[in-house]
Amino acid sequence: MEPQLPGSIGTSTSLAIRWGQALFSVASLLFMCVGVQFYAYTSFCFLVTIKGLTIPWSLTLAMVDAYFLFVKRPSHQLQIVLVIVIGDWILSFLPLAAACSTASVSDLMVIEAGSYFCGGKMCSRYRLSAAMACLSWSLSLASALFNLWLLPSLYSNY
Amino acid sequence: MEPQLPGSIGTSTSLAIRWGQALFSVASLLFMCVGVQFYAYTSFCFLVTIKGLTIPWSLTLAMVDAYFLFVKRPSHQLQIVLVIVIGDWILSFLPLAAACSTASVSDLMVIEAGSYFCGGKMCSRYRLSAAMACLSWSLSLASALFNLWLLPSLYSNY
Repeated sequence: MEPQLPGSIGTSTSLAIRWGQALFSVASLLFMCVGVQFYAYTSFCFLVTIKGLTIPWSLTLAMVDAYFLFVKRPSHQLQIVLVIVIGDWILSFLPLAAACSTASVSDLMVIEAGSYFCGGKMCSRYRLSAAMACLSWSLSLASALFNLWLLPSLYSNY
Repeated sequence: MEPQLPGSIGTSTSLAIRWGQALFSVASLLFMCVGVQFYAYTSFCFLVTIKGLTIPWSLTLAMVDAYFLFVKRPSHQLQIVLVIVIGDWILSFLPLAAACSTASVSDLMVIEAGSYFCGGKMCSRYRLSAAMACLSWSLSLASALFNLWLLPSLYSNY
């Protein structure tokens, strides 16, 4: 049995990180969607699409972590970890793009355009959504890095 | 002597990729800066700052590649490759963020706001700059991946 790297799949740290990702993503989605006409702007639609991809991914992996943690200890198979690492890396680039688009557009709306686009309350909701998306991205980067760190040791055992 | 991975440091592919990065970055910077008041918008300032970081990095590594290619064959030292990989990864996240910010802001300017922000010619220049930044980002992602691929073989040789 190989040593358990903290943060890699099947550890309690990983479970906490996945829950954090899902929570921040859901918060970002709610701030963006509920009662706001987000679909008028391309970058807000992009954020909603990406969050619709990342939330199922985070929840699935949280369930996998919980299974490994409470039911049986993980047997790190190279193929499974490889799929998780590739998925994590793709889902650590896309949310960054979405979060930055949202942040810059809402910043432009507030500072440059004044009340041309949105009232004060709507604008602060867009900004909160962007902040939540950034937090969620930093957590997905963390889990991508932890799982990537696990990969070479699996290769050398293989 | 370990085998030469195409695209890793010290190969002709790597030299071509580095030149492409530098070229697209310079093009993006020129489209953004010359004759346009870019500093009025936060995300455009961000793009210019990031390009000011990536252009020296790409040119330095292009020179290193040329030295390895024409003067002496590379001896892959773990520490050097590690520094290059970490730098490449950081500089593959930041330009993505900058490119997406620029693209979404210029898209918002053109489509949503009509001629509120910029005339047609200025707006198309912002968009060209965003497109060049995206191309430059895809090339830096490529070289980051190639150098990351080299890393495990170095660890096992070490």
